[in-house]
Order: sequence, then structure tokens, then C-alpha cells
Amino acid sequence: MSKEKLVVAVVGATGAVGREMLKTLEQRAFPAHKVIALASARSAGTRVPFNGTELTVQELTEESFEGVDIAIFSAGGSTSEKFAPFAAKAGCVVVDNSSAWRMDKRCPLVVPEVNPQDLEWHNGIIANPNCSTIQMVVALKPLHDAAKIKRVVVSTYQAVSGTGQKAIDELESQVRQLFNMQQPEPKVYPYQIAFNALPHIDVFLDNDYTKEEMKMVHETVKIMGDESIKVTATAVRIPVFYGHSESVNIETEKKLTPAQARAILTQAPGITVLDNPKEKIYPMAIEATGEDATFVGRIREDETIENGLNMWVVADNIRKGAALNAVQIAEMLIERDLLGVKDTTVFQ
Amino acid sequence: MSKEKLVVAVVGATGAVGREMLKTLEQRAFPAHKVIALASARSAGTRVPFNGTELTVQELTEESFEGVDIAIFSAGGSTSEKFAPFAAKAGCVVVDNSSAWRMDKRCPLVVPEVNPQDLEWHNGIIANPNCSTIQMVVALKPLHDAAKIKRVVVSTYQAVSGTGQKAIDELESQVRQLFNMQQPEPKVYPYQIAFNALPHIDVFLDNDYTKEEMKMVHETVKIMGDESIKVTATAVRIPVFYGHSESVNIETEKKLTPAQARAILTQAPGITVLDNPKEKIYPMAIEATGEDATFVGRIREDETIENGLNMWVVADNIRKGAALNAVQIAEMLIERDLLGVKDTTVFQ
Repeated sequence: MSKEKLVVAVVGATGAVGREMLKTLEQRAFPAHKVIALASARSAGTRVPFNGTELTVQELTEESFEGVDIAIFSAGGSTSEKFAPFAAKAGCVVVDNSSAWRMDKRCPLVVPEVNPQDLEWHNGIIANPNCSTIQMVVALKPLHDAAKIKRVVVSTYQAVSGTGQKAIDELESQVRQLFNMQQPEPKVYPYQIAFNALPHIDVFLDNDYTKEEMKMVHETVKIMGDESIKVTATAVRIPVFYGHSESVNIETEKKLTPAQARAILTQAPGITVLDNPKEKIYPMAIEATGEDATFVGRIREDETIENGLNMWVVADNIRKGAALNAVQIAEMLIERDLLGVKDTTVFQ
Repeated sequence: MSKEKLVVAVVGATGAVGREMLKTLEQRAFPAHKVIALASARSAGTRVPFNGTELTVQELTEESFEGVDIAIFSAGGSTSEKFAPFAAKAGCVVVDNSSAWRMDKRCPLVVPEVNPQDLEWHNGIIANPNCSTIQMVVALKPLHDAAKIKRVVVSTYQAVSGTGQKAIDELESQVRQLFNMQQPEPKVYPYQIAFNALPHIDVFLDNDYTKEEMKMVHETVKIMGDESIKVTATAVRIPVFYGHSESVNIETEKKLTPAQARAILTQAPGITVLDNPKEKIYPMAIEATGEDATFVGRIREDETIENGLNMWVVADNIRKGAALNAVQIAEMLIERDLLGVKDTTVFQ
């Protein structure tokens, strides 16, 4: 595949993540000859900004992928489920941001800093992990390599942008309603999100965990390629627009001092360590917004177990948690010459 | 002590917690003959609402406690440190909401639902625990009695009201500034709290934990009266006005199923279980505001260890976390006939 002729499609181009994907392609000077914006019939004809000009959004159909090399999907699970196989059939490699294909054995689930090798065996559909999982595994992987992680207890502090543009609007309008002595109206979330904390992200499952929490459990194992890593998660939505924060407690097989962990993470790809409590330096959602890095700080020894650490992990959920990770996968497909679909029947 | 002649002083009556204390005394029809409002010279002369009328705030001095039976302090650590001994010397029992006396061996640290027996040995100063600790131990105690808690990993989601009225004002004004395209001004907190999460409550200590986090570690052990309970904490301020939430992971010696834990907590004093995920019922900060109970929900098995549970604990940090707990202690002192100071030299 000559880069000069590379055609990239962004599916769901009008959504919060879709727009960020176009912005990320632009900012990173992604080597595409042509970028196509696709969305549902409802959004077709609208225009989205790209590279100083605008793209006219085209309707997503089964035939949209002829001549397209890479399709980055961010249009919800059911759209991905339906249309990604048509892309793969047409020889177009899908990088899918929904949860539809993540646990499918035919699909690698990839964070470029963690398991780039899994791209080698793709069958046309590559899954982008859940936002809260991505930033966590970026921080876990170098520590796992150094000391083998046995158990993770994580509690998240997730931004509304993870739910999409409607949720961003809802937080803003609820704040305005409250400040004008009006009753806030919950539509996107079951309850008021303004000035509240909702221990409820995605649907509840039979084990009383939410789907979001179980994504962190299962996706971590698949990405890290190690079934011995045990994760228990509590996923919480808080009134923050951009940037997920995570309180991560880990137990390792080998001892790691906070200083050792800090040194390892400082060297690790995709990570910026912000950890100087005396100077009040630690990661924060508002500082992570618009940044590519996963920020790690508040690294300290957990003295309740022999080999324990606590840390605070923050990233822009729309960038590293979604758009950037997907674009990084696309870049790596080009670099490693992994475009094209060898067997176009796998998902048929 | 005849209840007809009982005199109660509220020290720090103009602050957020002080006002809530007066409201709580009023709402619970506290059997006081007279309530005195005390504060620093700066606030003396101002009026605070109480029982349909107003109290004129008097200046706090070394002589303020003559003829006073109970003094509930909520005026900061240095005020408590200086003035509580004068109260005790005058035979007035202090219930102190600051951190000044909590770890002092001469002072019981009491949550009425957890360790009422510790009131028996008071020496004139009784400490009210930290807000985030109170609600946690209310939930932990019945589980500890049933199955012995070995380890707790807790991450908090704390409201700005815990910092006081100035922080409540700061969150509000920062939101208004941001919605008017102005740069928000942090004064109370080191960084913007609006639409952010700050992993920093109280000062940082030498071990890189915050004082707030270590309060949860040490106070839990003292209140529960069991040094074998190990707690590791991450304390986080979020943009919520009232109500602290906590993600609490526990490891017990004996197995407890979520159903057993739910049944135990349902019977326990001071707790309301809100735990029906299918009906989207779980505790939330906005629902806990103004309530006396500690709310527990999201109770589920942590399958990463043999005997593990996750739960979500929410309470009004100004009520159960401060004012209510202090007033409950005062009520118990009357009920159990524990007023008066036997040895007025202990703190001299």
C-alpha cells in the first residue's frame, strides 16, 4: 500500500469522538491521501471541519468501504456490529471504538504502548479498548513487566464526555438550571449528574457489576495477555467534562518501591509522571484535557500488603481513551505494513 | 445533671458545620435549657438562626465555659487545641469536631453507632472523627462484627462543603466564571475544583499520603478498637456541594456473601441500604444531603480474592460526618449520665 493513495474513513464523524478523530488525524499529519466522513443518514450532508476545510458527511452504507484502506468507527455498538464486517469483506481494515468486537476472539484488542504485537494477527477488525481500560493498562504494563501484577482494585472518576456530546450538554444545562433555581432534568443519565457522583456507568449485569466495570476486568486481561491479572472495579461518573481519573491500587509479585515505580513509569511509552506532592504536583482531569499522554502520580506504598502501590492515573478519555488510541493503531498498521485483509471471509 | 438546666455551647457557630449543629440541635429537640453561640472576636455580635429566633454570637474566651455543660466545637484545630482544655477545666464536656484531639490517648474518638462504650472513660474532651472516616466505620462495624475485616482499600469522592463555606462559594463562583468565559480563580483549593477532581485533601505528609488519607487509616483503628484492621486510602475532592461518597473494597476473614452483607447492614444502626441495581437504586450524594443515615449500596462480591466485597457508601458529610455525630455524642452523654468532668486536671 503506497501511502500516497491511502484512503481513510471516519465512521460516526459527527459525534464527540468522531470529531476528535478528525482533529487527531489532522494534528498528527496522518498520511492519508483522502479522508471520508461517514455517519447515519440523519447526519448525511452536514459538514465537519478537517484540515482547514470541511468534509461533507456521507451516508454510511454497506458499500461505503470500496476503495477505503482504513475505517475508524465510533458510531456505537450496533452500527459497528452491522457495518464492520462489510468493511472487512471489502478489504478495509476496521479500527473500532465500540464495545461490539472487543472480546471477540477473532479481533485483537490493542493499546499501541501495551500490545502492538497483537496487530499482526488481525482479521480485518481491530478493537479499540474502553476508555477507562486504555489509560489504566498504559500505566499497568510497565509495572507488570517489572514486577508482575497480581491484583488491581480500581475506582474511577469518569468525565461525561465518555457518554458523548449529549451528556456534555446535559451537564452544562443541569448546572445552568440549578443556578437559576430550576429543577435539573436528567435525560442522558438516570439521575442528576451536576454536583453529584453516579456509581453507575453502562448497564447493570447479573453479577451486580456494571458493564463498564466488567470491561475493565476482561479487557485488561486480553490486552495484557495474562489471565492471572485480577481486576475488581468500581466505575463512577462525576461532573467533569473531559478527563477520566482513576484511583488504582495494585498488588505485585515482586516488591516495587514508589521510587522504582516512578522510574519505570518515567521511562515508559505514552506516560508522563506528575508526582511531586510537596510541590502540589499530581495529575488532574483539567490538565490532561487535550493531551496525548497518560498522566500518573500520587505513587505511594500501600503498607497494608507486602507488595502494594497506590497511584492516580489521568488521561483525556476522548483522546487517549478513544480517538488517539484508534489513530495510533491506524498509524502502526501503516508503519508495520499490516493494511489489507488476508482472509475476507472471517466475519462473513 | 438535671436536663432542665442543661447549658450547651456551640463554638464556631457561624461556620458551615456550626450552623448545621444549631440546626441539628433544633431538629432533634435537644434537651437544652439554653444554647450559647460562640465564635472568634471577628464574628462576635453577628446573629445566627436557632429555634425560630436568633442567637447573638458571643466572643470565645477562656472564661466562656463557666456554667456550660457541653461545648460542641467546630472552629478549627488551633481553636480547639487552645480552648478545649479551658472548657474541661471548668467541668464542661467538649465534643470536638477538629482533628486536634482525635489521636490523643486521653480522648475517646466516638461514632455512637460504633463505639459508644468509649464515652465512659472520657476526661472532658471527646473527639468527633473525620467526616470520611465516620461514614466508613458506620458501614464497616457490623461487617467487622460478623466476619472480621482484615483490609480496606477506599477511594473517596468528597464534597467541597467538607472544607467549609468558603469552598462552597468557590465551587459556585468558579462554575459561574467558566460559564462566562472567565478564568476561574482558585483560592481555597490549589487548583480549579469546578469540573475537576483533586487527589489532594488536607496537607501532604512525609509518606506522600495526605493527612486526610492517614486520618482514615488511624482513626478507623482507634474507633473500631482493633489494630489488625488495615486501611489504605485515596482521598479525592470532586465538584459536589454536599455528600461524601466512598468506593470501599474490603477483605474479611470469614466469607460474607453480598446477600449476607446486605442483610447485616439492613439491621445495623444508622444505615439505610439502597441496593437494587436492576431498579437503578444506589446511594448518591444529592439524595444523601440533609439526611441522617449513612447509605450503602452497590454491594457485590469481589472475586479477585477469597473473601472480598465492594460497596458504595454515601453520607451527608456536614450532618453524619460532623454536626449530627457530635450532637448524637452529646445526647448519649446525657442519656448515659456522663456529663461533668471527674478529673479537671487531665488536660492542664
